[in-house]
Amino acid sequence: MSDPGFPDWRARIDAALARALPDPDASPRRLHAAMRHATLQGGKRMRPLLVYASGRLFGAGMESLDDAALAVELIHAYSLVHDDLPCMDDDALRRGQPTVHVAFDEATAVLAGDALQTLAFERLARAPLDADTRIDLVRQLAEASGAAGMCGGQALDLDATGNGGGISLDGLKRLHALKTGALIRTSVRMGALCAKADAGQRVALDRFADALGLAFQVRDDILDIESDSATLGKTAGKDQAQAKATFPALIGMVASRCLLSDLAAMMDEALSEFGDDAAPLAALGRLAIERDR
Amino acid sequence: MSDPGFPDWRARIDAALARALPDPDASPRRLHAAMRHATLQGGKRMRPLLVYASGRLFGAGMESLDDAALAVELIHAYSLVHDDLPCMDDDALRRGQPTVHVAFDEATAVLAGDALQTLAFERLARAPLDADTRIDLVRQLAEASGAAGMCGGQALDLDATGNGGGISLDGLKRLHALKTGALIRTSVRMGALCAKADAGQRVALDRFADALGLAFQVRDDILDIESDSATLGKTAGKDQAQAKATFPALIGMVASRCLLSDLAAMMDEALSEFGDDAAPLAALGRLAIERDR
Repeated sequence: MSDPGFPDWRARIDAALARALPDPDASPRRLHAAMRHATLQGGKRMRPLLVYASGRLFGAGMESLDDAALAVELIHAYSLVHDDLPCMDDDALRRGQPTVHVAFDEATAVLAGDALQTLAFERLARAPLDADTRIDLVRQLAEASGAAGMCGGQALDLDATGNGGGISLDGLKRLHALKTGALIRTSVRMGALCAKADAGQRVALDRFADALGLAFQVRDDILDIESDSATLGKTAGKDQAQAKATFPALIGMVASRCLLSDLAAMMDEALSEFGDDAAPLAALGRLAIERDR
Repeated sequence: MSDPGFPDWRARIDAALARALPDPDASPRRLHAAMRHATLQGGKRMRPLLVYASGRLFGAGMESLDDAALAVELIHAYSLVHDDLPCMDDDALRRGQPTVHVAFDEATAVLAGDALQTLAFERLARAPLDADTRIDLVRQLAEASGAAGMCGGQALDLDATGNGGGISLDGLKRLHALKTGALIRTSVRMGALCAKADAGQRVALDRFADALGLAFQVRDDILDIESDSATLGKTAGKDQAQAKATFPALIGMVASRCLLSDLAAMMDEALSEFGDDAAPLAALGRLAIERDR
Protein backbone atom coordinates (compact mmCIF):
# COMPACT_ATOMS: atom_id res chain seq x y z
CA MET A 1 0.00 0.00 0.00
CA SER A 2 1.33 3.40 -0.93
CA ASP A 3 -0.61 5.44 1.63
CA PRO A 4 1.45 5.81 4.80
CA GLY A 5 -1.69 5.98 6.98
CA PHE A 6 -2.80 2.39 6.52
CA PRO A 7 -0.14 0.63 8.60
CA ASP A 8 -1.12 2.81 11.57
CA TRP A 9 -4.82 2.19 11.00
CA ARG A 10 -4.23 -1.55 10.66
CA ALA A 11 -2.27 -1.61 13.91
CA ARG A 12 -5.07 0.41 15.52
CA ILE A 13 -7.84 -1.98 14.49
CA ASP A 14 -5.74 -5.03 15.41
CA ALA A 15 -5.17 -3.61 18.89
CA ALA A 16 -8.83 -2.63 19.25
CA LEU A 17 -9.92 -6.15 18.28
CA ALA A 18 -7.52 -7.72 20.76
CA ARG A 19 -9.00 -5.52 23.52
CA ALA A 20 -12.63 -6.00 22.49
CA LEU A 21 -12.54 -9.79 22.29
CA PRO A 22 -13.12 -11.81 25.47
CA ASP A 23 -10.17 -12.75 27.69
CA PRO A 24 -8.60 -16.03 26.49
CA ASP A 25 -7.86 -17.01 30.10
CA ALA A 26 -11.47 -16.58 31.28
CA SER A 27 -14.18 -19.24 31.07
CA PRO A 28 -15.46 -20.45 28.62
CA ARG A 29 -11.89 -20.54 27.35
CA ARG A 30 -12.42 -22.63 24.27
CA LEU A 31 -15.10 -20.29 22.95
CA HIS A 32 -12.99 -17.22 23.69
CA ALA A 33 -9.94 -18.77 22.06
CA ALA A 34 -11.96 -19.64 18.96
CA MET A 35 -13.32 -16.08 18.71
CA ARG A 36 -9.78 -14.72 18.92
CA HIS A 37 -8.44 -17.26 16.42
CA ALA A 38 -11.17 -16.20 13.97
CA THR A 39 -10.31 -12.52 14.26
CA LEU A 40 -6.68 -11.97 15.24
CA GLN A 41 -4.87 -13.89 12.47
CA GLY A 42 -4.37 -10.80 10.36
CA GLY A 43 -6.40 -10.19 7.24
CA LYS A 44 -6.54 -7.18 4.99
CA ARG A 45 -8.86 -5.24 7.34
CA MET A 46 -10.40 -3.68 4.24
CA ARG A 47 -13.74 -2.95 5.94
CA PRO A 48 -12.42 -1.17 9.04
CA LEU A 49 -9.97 0.77 6.84
CA LEU A 50 -12.98 1.93 4.80
CA VAL A 51 -14.70 3.09 8.00
CA TYR A 52 -11.63 5.09 9.01
CA ALA A 53 -11.03 6.50 5.51
CA SER A 54 -14.66 7.54 5.08
CA GLY A 55 -14.96 9.01 8.57
CA ARG A 56 -11.69 10.94 8.27
CA LEU A 57 -12.80 12.38 4.92
CA PHE A 58 -15.55 14.19 6.85
CA GLY A 59 -13.39 15.06 9.85
CA ALA A 60 -14.43 12.43 12.40
CA GLY A 61 -11.96 11.68 15.22
CA MET A 62 -10.39 8.23 15.24
CA GLU A 63 -11.90 7.42 18.66
CA SER A 64 -15.38 8.04 17.31
CA LEU A 65 -14.74 5.55 14.48
CA ASP A 66 -13.17 2.65 16.38
CA ASP A 67 -16.40 0.87 17.35
CA ALA A 68 -17.87 1.04 13.87
CA ALA A 69 -14.56 -0.26 12.49
CA LEU A 70 -14.61 -3.08 15.06
CA ALA A 71 -18.21 -3.94 14.30
CA VAL A 72 -17.78 -4.37 10.55
CA GLU A 73 -14.66 -6.51 11.05
CA LEU A 74 -16.44 -8.69 13.64
CA ILE A 75 -19.33 -9.26 11.23
CA HIS A 76 -16.87 -10.09 8.45
CA ALA A 77 -14.97 -12.49 10.73
CA TYR A 78 -18.14 -14.28 11.86
CA SER A 79 -19.25 -14.70 8.25
CA LEU A 80 -15.91 -16.30 7.33
CA VAL A 81 -16.10 -18.76 10.25
CA HIS A 82 -19.56 -19.91 9.21
CA ASP A 83 -18.80 -19.88 5.46
CA ASP A 84 -15.79 -22.14 6.06
CA LEU A 85 -17.87 -24.81 7.86
CA PRO A 86 -18.03 -28.28 6.27
CA CYS A 87 -21.74 -27.79 5.46
CA MET A 88 -20.94 -24.52 3.64
CA ASP A 89 -17.70 -24.01 1.67
CA ASP A 90 -15.80 -26.68 3.66
CA ASP A 91 -12.51 -24.83 3.79
CA ALA A 92 -9.57 -25.83 5.97
CA LEU A 93 -7.31 -22.83 5.40
CA ARG A 94 -7.92 -19.13 6.03
CA ARG A 95 -5.33 -16.35 6.31
CA GLY A 96 -2.67 -19.08 6.19
CA GLN A 97 -4.06 -20.76 9.32
CA PRO A 98 -6.40 -23.68 9.97
CA THR A 99 -10.03 -22.51 9.91
CA VAL A 100 -11.88 -22.37 13.23
CA HIS A 101 -13.70 -25.70 12.88
CA VAL A 102 -10.37 -27.38 12.03
CA ALA A 103 -8.38 -25.73 14.84
CA PHE A 104 -11.25 -26.30 17.32
CA ASP A 105 -14.39 -28.19 16.29
CA GLU A 106 -17.57 -27.51 14.36
CA ALA A 107 -19.79 -26.79 17.36
CA THR A 108 -17.30 -24.27 18.71
CA ALA A 109 -17.04 -22.68 15.25
CA VAL A 110 -20.82 -22.22 15.07
CA LEU A 111 -20.88 -20.66 18.55
CA ALA A 112 -17.83 -18.48 17.98
CA GLY A 113 -19.39 -17.06 14.83
CA ASP A 114 -22.64 -16.44 16.69
CA ALA A 115 -20.88 -14.64 19.53
CA LEU A 116 -18.78 -12.53 17.13
CA GLN A 117 -21.95 -11.29 15.48
CA THR A 118 -23.45 -10.40 18.86
CA LEU A 119 -20.27 -8.58 19.88
CA ALA A 120 -20.49 -6.39 16.77
CA PHE A 121 -23.84 -4.98 17.87
CA GLU A 122 -22.71 -4.68 21.47
CA ARG A 123 -19.77 -2.52 20.37
CA LEU A 124 -22.02 -0.19 18.40
CA ALA A 125 -24.29 0.19 21.43
CA ARG A 126 -21.25 1.22 23.51
CA ALA A 127 -19.66 3.63 21.00
CA PRO A 128 -18.80 7.15 22.28
CA LEU A 129 -21.42 8.75 20.05
CA ASP A 130 -24.88 10.19 20.64
CA ALA A 131 -27.69 7.64 20.87
CA ASP A 132 -29.27 8.64 17.56
CA THR A 133 -26.02 8.00 15.68
CA ARG A 134 -25.51 4.68 17.46
CA ILE A 135 -29.01 3.55 16.52
CA ASP A 136 -28.39 4.58 12.90
CA LEU A 137 -25.22 2.45 12.96
CA VAL A 138 -27.04 -0.57 14.42
CA ARG A 139 -29.78 -0.32 11.81
CA GLN A 140 -27.29 0.18 8.99
CA LEU A 141 -25.17 -2.81 10.01
CA ALA A 142 -28.17 -5.08 10.61
CA GLU A 143 -29.69 -4.30 7.22
CA ALA A 144 -26.38 -4.96 5.49
CA SER A 145 -25.62 -8.24 7.21
CA GLY A 146 -29.01 -9.98 7.49
CA ALA A 147 -31.37 -11.72 5.07
CA ALA A 148 -31.58 -8.62 2.86
CA GLY A 149 -27.78 -8.32 2.78
CA MET A 150 -24.81 -10.59 3.45
CA CYS A 151 -26.77 -13.66 4.66
CA GLY A 152 -29.13 -13.35 1.72
CA GLY A 153 -26.18 -13.18 -0.67
CA GLN A 154 -24.65 -16.28 0.87
CA ALA A 155 -27.99 -18.08 0.42
CA LEU A 156 -28.03 -17.07 -3.26
CA ASP A 157 -24.45 -18.34 -3.54
CA LEU A 158 -25.50 -21.71 -2.12
CA ASP A 159 -28.28 -21.87 -4.72
CA ALA A 160 -25.85 -21.04 -7.54
CA THR A 161 -23.04 -23.40 -6.44
CA GLY A 162 -22.86 -26.53 -8.55
CA ASN A 163 -25.07 -24.68 -10.99
CA GLY A 164 -22.51 -22.20 -12.34
CA GLY A 165 -24.07 -22.00 -15.79
CA GLY A 166 -27.54 -21.31 -14.48
CA ILE A 167 -27.00 -17.74 -13.33
CA SER A 168 -26.97 -14.59 -15.48
CA LEU A 169 -24.39 -11.82 -15.22
CA ASP A 170 -27.00 -9.61 -13.58
CA GLY A 171 -27.85 -12.44 -11.19
CA LEU A 172 -24.19 -12.84 -10.27
CA LYS A 173 -23.83 -9.11 -9.71
CA ARG A 174 -26.89 -9.12 -7.46
CA LEU A 175 -25.52 -12.11 -5.52
CA HIS A 176 -22.28 -10.27 -4.82
CA ALA A 177 -23.97 -6.93 -4.20
CA LEU A 178 -25.54 -8.71 -1.23
CA LYS A 179 -22.85 -11.19 -0.20
CA THR A 180 -19.82 -8.87 -0.30
CA GLY A 181 -21.09 -5.51 -1.47
CA ALA A 182 -23.60 -4.75 1.27
CA LEU A 183 -21.03 -4.88 4.08
CA ILE A 184 -18.47 -2.88 2.06
CA ARG A 185 -21.07 -0.21 1.25
CA THR A 186 -22.07 -0.15 4.91
CA SER A 187 -18.46 0.23 6.05
CA VAL A 188 -18.17 3.41 3.98
CA ARG A 189 -21.59 4.61 5.12
CA MET A 190 -20.85 3.99 8.79
CA GLY A 191 -17.73 6.14 8.66
CA ALA A 192 -19.81 8.90 7.09
CA LEU A 193 -22.56 8.44 9.70
CA CYS A 194 -20.06 8.76 12.56
CA ALA A 195 -18.90 12.04 10.98
CA LYS A 196 -22.48 13.20 10.33
CA ALA A 197 -21.79 13.67 6.60
CA ASP A 198 -24.80 15.09 4.75
CA ALA A 199 -27.05 12.96 2.56
CA GLY A 200 -25.75 14.34 -0.75
CA GLN A 201 -22.19 13.38 0.13
CA ARG A 202 -23.36 9.90 1.03
CA VAL A 203 -24.83 9.33 -2.44
CA ALA A 204 -21.40 9.77 -4.05
CA LEU A 205 -19.88 7.51 -1.42
CA ASP A 206 -22.45 4.81 -2.21
CA ARG A 207 -21.46 4.91 -5.88
CA PHE A 208 -17.82 4.55 -4.90
CA ALA A 209 -18.56 1.72 -2.47
CA ASP A 210 -20.78 -0.22 -4.88
CA ALA A 211 -18.04 -0.16 -7.52
CA LEU A 212 -15.45 -1.15 -4.93
CA GLY A 213 -17.56 -4.04 -3.62
CA LEU A 214 -18.01 -5.48 -7.08
CA ALA A 215 -14.33 -4.94 -7.95
CA PHE A 216 -13.33 -6.72 -4.76
CA GLN A 217 -15.29 -9.79 -5.78
CA VAL A 218 -14.15 -9.83 -9.42
CA ARG A 219 -10.55 -9.64 -8.20
CA ASP A 220 -11.29 -12.46 -5.74
CA ASP A 221 -12.56 -14.65 -8.57
CA ILE A 222 -9.48 -13.90 -10.71
CA LEU A 223 -7.11 -14.62 -7.82
CA ASP A 224 -8.81 -17.96 -7.14
CA ILE A 225 -7.76 -19.00 -10.65
CA GLU A 226 -4.37 -17.28 -11.03
CA SER A 227 -2.86 -17.47 -7.57
CA ASP A 228 -1.80 -20.29 -5.27
CA SER A 229 -2.86 -21.22 -1.76
CA ALA A 230 0.40 -20.06 -0.15
CA THR A 231 0.00 -16.53 -1.54
CA LEU A 232 -3.74 -16.34 -0.89
CA GLY A 233 -3.60 -17.81 2.61
CA LYS A 234 -6.69 -19.79 1.63
CA THR A 235 -7.33 -22.66 -0.72
CA ALA A 236 -6.85 -21.61 -4.36
CA GLY A 237 -8.84 -23.17 -7.20
CA LYS A 238 -11.86 -23.82 -4.97
CA ASP A 239 -14.36 -22.02 -7.19
CA GLN A 240 -13.85 -24.27 -10.18
CA ALA A 241 -13.66 -27.40 -8.03
CA GLN A 242 -17.03 -26.53 -6.47
CA ALA A 243 -18.53 -25.30 -9.77
CA LYS A 244 -19.09 -21.88 -8.22
CA ALA A 245 -20.64 -19.14 -10.27
CA THR A 246 -17.78 -16.66 -10.88
CA PHE A 247 -17.14 -13.75 -13.21
CA PRO A 248 -14.34 -15.51 -15.15
CA ALA A 249 -16.53 -18.60 -15.53
CA LEU A 250 -19.44 -16.53 -16.79
CA ILE A 251 -17.82 -13.85 -18.98
CA GLY A 252 -14.21 -15.04 -19.33
CA MET A 253 -10.94 -13.69 -17.98
CA VAL A 254 -10.49 -10.89 -20.52
CA ALA A 255 -13.95 -9.45 -19.93
CA SER A 256 -13.42 -9.80 -16.17
CA ARG A 257 -10.29 -7.65 -16.42
CA CYS A 258 -12.16 -5.10 -18.53
CA LEU A 259 -14.87 -5.00 -15.89
CA LEU A 260 -12.22 -4.27 -13.26
CA SER A 261 -10.91 -1.33 -15.33
CA ASP A 262 -14.42 0.04 -15.73
CA LEU A 263 -15.00 -0.22 -11.99
CA ALA A 264 -11.70 1.58 -11.28
CA ALA A 265 -12.87 4.46 -13.47
CA MET A 266 -16.24 4.53 -11.71
CA MET A 267 -14.52 4.77 -8.34
CA ASP A 268 -12.35 7.68 -9.49
CA GLU A 269 -15.37 9.47 -10.88
CA ALA A 270 -17.40 8.96 -7.70
CA LEU A 271 -14.61 10.39 -5.53
CA SER A 272 -13.76 13.31 -7.83
CA GLU A 273 -15.95 15.81 -5.93
CA PHE A 274 -13.93 15.26 -2.77
CA GLY A 275 -10.53 16.10 -4.31
CA ASP A 276 -7.33 15.14 -2.51
CA ASP A 277 -9.13 14.54 0.77
CA ALA A 278 -10.39 11.25 -0.66
CA ALA A 279 -6.86 9.90 -1.27
CA PRO A 280 -7.17 7.16 1.40
CA LEU A 281 -10.49 5.95 -0.04
CA ALA A 282 -9.01 6.03 -3.55
CA ALA A 283 -6.02 4.02 -2.34
CA LEU A 284 -8.35 1.41 -0.84
CA GLY A 285 -10.15 1.21 -4.17
CA ARG A 286 -6.84 0.54 -5.94
CA LEU A 287 -5.96 -2.04 -3.31
CA ALA A 288 -9.17 -3.95 -4.05
CA ILE A 289 -8.24 -4.12 -7.73
CA GLU A 290 -4.47 -4.66 -7.51
CA ARG A 291 -4.15 -6.92 -4.48
CA ASP A 292 -2.54 -10.33 -4.89
CA ARG A 293 -4.27 -11.99 -1.93
CA MET B 1 -52.67 -21.03 31.42
CA SER B 2 -55.16 -19.49 33.77
CA ASP B 3 -54.50 -15.84 32.92
CA PRO B 4 -56.86 -14.71 30.18
CA GLY B 5 -54.30 -12.23 28.81
CA PHE B 6 -51.83 -14.79 27.52
CA PRO B 7 -53.81 -16.12 24.54
CA ASP B 8 -54.12 -12.55 23.24
CA TRP B 9 -50.45 -11.84 23.84
CA ARG B 10 -49.45 -15.09 22.14
CA ALA B 11 -51.59 -14.26 19.13
CA ARG B 12 -50.05 -10.80 19.11
CA ILE B 13 -46.45 -12.03 19.08
CA ASP B 14 -47.24 -14.73 16.51
CA ALA B 15 -48.74 -12.10 14.20
CA ALA B 16 -45.84 -9.72 14.82
CA LEU B 17 -43.33 -12.47 13.97
CA ALA B 18 -45.17 -13.37 10.77
CA ARG B 19 -45.03 -9.70 9.72
CA ALA B 20 -41.41 -9.14 10.76
CA LEU B 21 -39.95 -12.18 9.00
CA PRO B 22 -38.99 -11.86 5.33
CA ASP B 23 -41.54 -12.64 2.62
CA PRO B 24 -41.52 -16.37 1.80
CA ASP B 25 -42.23 -15.60 -1.86
CA ALA B 26 -39.26 -13.22 -2.24
CA SER B 27 -35.69 -14.27 -3.10
CA PRO B 28 -33.76 -15.91 -1.47
CA ARG B 29 -36.84 -18.06 -0.85
CA ARG B 30 -35.15 -21.01 0.78
CA LEU B 31 -33.50 -18.81 3.41
CA HIS B 32 -36.73 -16.94 4.08
CA ALA B 33 -38.71 -20.18 4.34
CA ALA B 34 -36.16 -21.60 6.79
CA MET B 35 -36.31 -18.48 8.96
CA ARG B 36 -40.10 -18.75 9.07
CA HIS B 37 -40.02 -22.49 9.75
CA ALA B 38 -37.68 -21.83 12.70
CA THR B 39 -39.96 -19.22 14.20
CA LEU B 40 -43.59 -19.74 13.24
CA GLN B 41 -44.16 -23.35 14.40
CA GLY B 42 -45.60 -22.26 17.73
CA GLY B 43 -43.65 -22.56 20.92
CA LYS B 44 -44.45 -21.36 24.39
CA ARG B 45 -43.40 -17.76 23.64
CA MET B 46 -42.25 -17.52 27.26
CA ARG B 47 -39.70 -14.78 26.58
CA PRO B 48 -41.98 -12.37 24.67
CA LEU B 49 -44.71 -12.99 27.26
CA LEU B 50 -42.21 -11.93 29.93
CA VAL B 51 -41.47 -8.74 27.99
CA TYR B 52 -45.17 -7.92 27.79
CA ALA B 53 -45.88 -8.85 31.43
CA SER B 54 -42.95 -6.84 32.74
CA GLY B 55 -43.66 -3.84 30.54
CA ARG B 56 -47.37 -3.82 31.41
CA LEU B 57 -46.55 -3.96 35.11
CA PHE B 58 -45.00 -0.51 34.71
CA GLY B 59 -47.67 0.82 32.36
CA ALA B 60 -45.95 0.52 28.96
CA GLY B 61 -48.23 0.39 25.90
CA MET B 62 -48.27 -2.86 23.93
CA GLU B 63 -46.98 -1.14 20.77
CA SER B 64 -43.91 0.05 22.65
CA LEU B 65 -43.17 -3.54 23.71
CA ASP B 66 -43.66 -5.42 20.44
CA ASP B 67 -40.13 -5.00 19.08
CA ALA B 68 -38.46 -6.06 22.31
CA ALA B 69 -40.79 -9.07 22.43
CA LEU B 70 -39.91 -9.90 18.83
CA ALA B 71 -36.20 -9.50 19.44
CA VAL B 72 -35.99 -11.92 22.38
CA GLU B 73 -38.03 -14.54 20.51
CA LEU B 74 -35.86 -14.17 17.39
CA ILE B 75 -32.71 -14.68 19.49
CA HIS B 76 -34.30 -17.70 21.16
CA ALA B 77 -35.34 -19.13 17.78
CA TYR B 78 -31.86 -18.67 16.28
CA SER B 79 -30.27 -20.40 19.26
CA LEU B 80 -32.57 -23.41 18.84
CA VAL B 81 -31.75 -23.71 15.13
CA HIS B 82 -28.02 -23.75 15.84
CA ASP B 83 -28.30 -25.94 18.97
CA ASP B 84 -30.21 -28.55 16.96
CA LEU B 85 -27.44 -28.83 14.30
CA PRO B 86 -25.73 -32.23 13.92
CA CYS B 87 -22.47 -30.80 15.29
CA MET B 88 -24.27 -29.54 18.41
CA ASP B 89 -27.21 -31.46 19.96
CA ASP B 90 -28.09 -33.23 16.68
CA ASP B 91 -31.85 -33.08 17.14
CA ALA B 92 -34.37 -33.90 14.42
CA LEU B 93 -37.56 -32.81 16.19
CA ARG B 94 -38.57 -29.42 17.59
CA ARG B 95 -42.07 -28.18 18.44
CA GLY B 96 -43.37 -31.38 16.86
CA GLN B 97 -41.81 -30.53 13.49
CA PRO B 98 -38.56 -31.47 11.73
CA THR B 99 -35.75 -29.18 12.80
CA VAL B 100 -34.49 -26.65 10.25
CA HIS B 101 -31.46 -28.63 9.08
CA VAL B 102 -33.73 -31.67 8.56
CA ALA B 103 -36.51 -29.79 6.78
CA PHE B 104 -33.97 -27.80 4.71
CA ASP B 105 -30.23 -28.52 4.98
CA GLU B 106 -27.38 -27.71 7.34
CA ALA B 107 -26.00 -24.75 5.41
CA THR B 108 -29.43 -23.14 5.26
CA ALA B 109 -29.90 -23.78 8.98
CA VAL B 110 -26.63 -22.01 9.81
CA LEU B 111 -27.59 -19.04 7.63
CA ALA B 112 -31.18 -18.87 8.88
CA GLY B 113 -29.96 -18.77 12.48
CA ASP B 114 -27.46 -16.06 11.58
CA ALA B 115 -30.10 -13.95 9.86
CA LEU B 116 -32.59 -14.40 12.74
CA GLN B 117 -30.01 -13.02 15.14
CA THR B 118 -29.40 -10.02 12.88
CA LEU B 119 -33.12 -9.38 12.57
CA ALA B 120 -33.44 -9.21 16.36
CA PHE B 121 -31.07 -6.24 16.52
CA GLU B 122 -32.63 -4.63 13.46
CA ARG B 123 -36.05 -4.72 15.17
CA LEU B 124 -34.72 -3.03 18.29
CA ALA B 125 -33.14 -0.30 16.16
CA ARG B 126 -36.55 0.34 14.56
CA ALA B 127 -38.68 0.27 17.74
CA PRO B 128 -41.02 3.25 18.33
CA LEU B 129 -39.01 4.38 21.36
CA ASP B 130 -36.52 7.16 21.97
CA ALA B 131 -32.96 6.46 20.80
CA ASP B 132 -31.55 6.17 24.34
CA THR B 133 -34.03 3.42 25.23
CA ARG B 134 -33.38 1.60 21.97
CA ILE B 135 -29.63 1.66 22.60
CA ASP B 136 -30.19 0.34 26.14
CA LEU B 137 -32.23 -2.51 24.65
CA VAL B 138 -29.54 -3.35 22.07
CA ARG B 139 -26.84 -3.40 24.75
CA GLN B 140 -28.99 -5.44 27.12
CA LEU B 141 -29.84 -8.04 24.49
CA ALA B 142 -26.28 -8.26 23.17
CA GLU B 143 -24.81 -8.79 26.63
CA ALA B 144 -27.36 -11.50 27.40
CA SER B 145 -26.93 -13.42 24.17
CA GLY B 146 -23.19 -13.27 23.45
CA ALA B 147 -20.07 -14.88 24.89
CA ALA B 148 -20.86 -13.55 28.38
CA GLY B 149 -24.43 -14.89 28.16
CA MET B 150 -26.29 -17.46 26.11
CA CYS B 151 -23.44 -18.41 23.73
CA GLY B 152 -21.07 -18.73 26.68
CA GLY B 153 -23.55 -21.00 28.46
CA GLN B 154 -23.89 -23.18 25.39
CA ALA B 155 -20.08 -23.45 25.24
CA LEU B 156 -20.01 -24.54 28.90
CA ASP B 157 -22.72 -27.07 28.08
CA LEU B 158 -20.59 -28.51 25.27
CA ASP B 159 -17.70 -28.83 27.71
CA ALA B 160 -19.92 -30.61 30.26
CA THR B 161 -21.66 -32.96 27.80
CA GLY B 162 -20.32 -36.50 27.96
CA ASN B 163 -18.77 -35.45 31.22
CA GLY B 164 -21.95 -35.28 33.34
CA GLY B 165 -20.23 -36.25 36.56
CA GLY B 166 -17.48 -33.69 36.21
CA ILE B 167 -19.51 -30.57 37.00
CA SER B 168 -20.55 -29.28 40.43
CA LEU B 169 -24.04 -28.07 41.35
CA ASP B 170 -22.73 -24.51 41.37
CA GLY B 171 -21.10 -25.11 37.99
CA LEU B 172 -24.37 -26.41 36.59
CA LYS B 173 -26.26 -23.42 37.96
CA ARG B 174 -23.73 -21.06 36.39
CA LEU B 175 -24.00 -22.91 33.08
CA HIS B 176 -27.77 -22.43 33.03
CA ALA B 177 -27.64 -18.90 34.40
CA LEU B 178 -25.84 -18.13 31.13
CA LYS B 179 -27.42 -20.57 28.70
CA THR B 180 -31.09 -20.06 29.60
CA GLY B 181 -31.13 -17.56 32.45
CA ALA B 182 -29.48 -14.60 30.78
CA LEU B 183 -32.08 -14.30 28.03
CA ILE B 184 -34.97 -14.81 30.47
CA ARG B 185 -33.59 -12.15 32.80
CA THR B 186 -33.12 -9.84 29.84
CA SER B 187 -36.69 -10.41 28.65
CA VAL B 188 -37.97 -9.16 32.00
CA ARG B 189 -35.48 -6.29 32.02
CA MET B 190 -36.33 -5.20 28.49
CA GLY B 191 -40.01 -4.87 29.34
CA ALA B 192 -39.04 -2.72 32.32
CA LEU B 193 -36.66 -0.65 30.16
CA CYS B 194 -39.38 0.05 27.59
CA ALA B 195 -41.56 1.28 30.47
CA LYS B 196 -38.70 3.27 32.03
CA ALA B 197 -39.08 1.48 35.37
CA ASP B 198 -36.69 2.80 38.01
CA ALA B 199 -33.54 0.95 39.05
CA GLY B 200 -34.90 -0.19 42.43
CA GLN B 201 -37.85 -1.89 40.80
CA ARG B 202 -35.51 -3.62 38.39
CA VAL B 203 -33.55 -5.24 41.22
CA ALA B 204 -36.65 -7.09 42.43
CA LEU B 205 -37.43 -8.09 38.87
CA ASP B 206 -33.93 -9.52 38.46
CA ARG B 207 -34.45 -11.72 41.53
CA PHE B 208 -37.73 -12.94 40.08
CA ALA B 209 -36.21 -13.56 36.66
CA ASP B 210 -33.16 -15.37 37.99
CA ALA B 211 -35.35 -17.78 39.96
CA LEU B 212 -37.61 -18.25 36.95
CA GLY B 213 -34.69 -18.93 34.63
CA LEU B 214 -33.30 -21.63 36.88
CA ALA B 215 -36.77 -23.13 37.47
CA PHE B 216 -37.33 -23.25 33.73
CA GLN B 217 -34.20 -25.34 33.26
CA VAL B 218 -34.82 -27.67 36.22
CA ARG B 219 -38.30 -28.35 34.85
CA ASP B 220 -36.78 -28.96 31.41
CA ASP B 221 -34.43 -31.56 32.86
CA ILE B 222 -37.28 -33.30 34.71
CA LEU B 223 -39.49 -33.34 31.60
CA ASP B 224 -36.69 -34.85 29.51
CA ILE B 225 -36.83 -37.86 31.87
CA GLU B 226 -40.55 -38.09 32.67
CA SER B 227 -42.24 -37.08 29.44
CA ASP B 228 -42.36 -38.51 25.92
CA SER B 229 -41.43 -37.01 22.56
CA ALA B 230 -45.05 -36.60 21.41
CA THR B 231 -45.92 -34.45 24.44
CA LEU B 232 -42.67 -32.49 24.40
CA GLY B 233 -42.64 -31.88 20.66
CA LYS B 234 -38.92 -32.64 20.83
CA THR B 235 -36.90 -35.78 21.46
CA ALA B 236 -37.35 -37.02 25.05
CA GLY B 237 -34.60 -38.85 26.91
CA LYS B 238 -31.84 -37.03 25.03
CA ASP B 239 -30.02 -35.77 28.13
CA GLN B 240 -29.25 -39.23 29.46
CA ALA B 241 -28.43 -40.58 26.00
CA GLN B 242 -25.87 -37.79 25.53
CA ALA B 243 -24.62 -37.93 29.15
CA LYS B 244 -25.65 -34.30 29.61
CA ALA B 245 -25.10 -32.63 32.94
CA THR B 246 -28.61 -32.20 34.39
CA PHE B 247 -30.09 -31.41 37.80
CA PRO B 248 -31.72 -34.87 38.23
CA ALA B 249 -28.44 -36.54 37.22
CA LEU B 250 -26.48 -34.44 39.70
CA ILE B 251 -28.76 -34.16 42.75
CA GLY B 252 -31.53 -36.69 42.01
CA MET B 253 -35.19 -36.27 41.17
CA VAL B 254 -36.43 -35.62 44.73
CA ALA B 255 -33.93 -32.84 45.35
CA SER B 256 -34.69 -31.39 41.90
CA ARG B 257 -38.38 -31.13 42.84
CA CYS B 258 -37.48 -29.51 46.17
CA LEU B 259 -35.34 -27.00 44.27
CA LEU B 260 -38.34 -26.16 42.09
CA SER B 261 -40.48 -25.49 45.20
CA ASP B 262 -37.80 -23.25 46.65
CA LEU B 263 -37.58 -21.32 43.40
CA ALA B 264 -41.38 -20.90 43.32
CA ALA B 265 -41.22 -19.35 46.81
CA MET B 266 -38.39 -17.05 45.72
CA MET B 267 -40.41 -15.86 42.75
CA ASP B 268 -43.43 -15.07 44.96
CA GLU B 269 -41.24 -13.20 47.42
CA ALA B 270 -39.56 -11.16 44.68
CA LEU B 271 -42.90 -10.08 43.22
CA SER B 272 -44.58 -9.35 46.57
CA GLU B 273 -43.79 -5.61 46.47
CA PHE B 274 -45.79 -5.23 43.26
CA GLY B 275 -49.03 -6.72 44.61
CA ASP B 276 -51.79 -7.84 42.22
CA ASP B 277 -50.28 -5.90 39.32
CA ALA B 278 -47.66 -8.63 39.03
CA ALA B 279 -50.26 -11.38 38.44
CA PRO B 280 -49.19 -11.99 34.82
CA LEU B 281 -45.52 -12.32 35.81
CA ALA B 282 -46.50 -14.65 38.68
CA ALA B 283 -48.56 -16.74 36.27
CA LEU B 284 -45.57 -17.05 33.94
CA GLY B 285 -43.47 -18.19 36.90
CA ARG B 286 -46.01 -20.92 37.66
CA LEU B 287 -46.07 -21.89 34.00
CA ALA B 288 -42.31 -22.44 34.04
CA ILE B 289 -42.67 -24.82 36.97
CA GLU B 290 -45.89 -26.62 36.07
CA ARG B 291 -45.63 -26.94 32.29
CA ASP B 292 -45.68 -30.40 30.70
CA ARG B 293 -43.81 -29.47 27.52
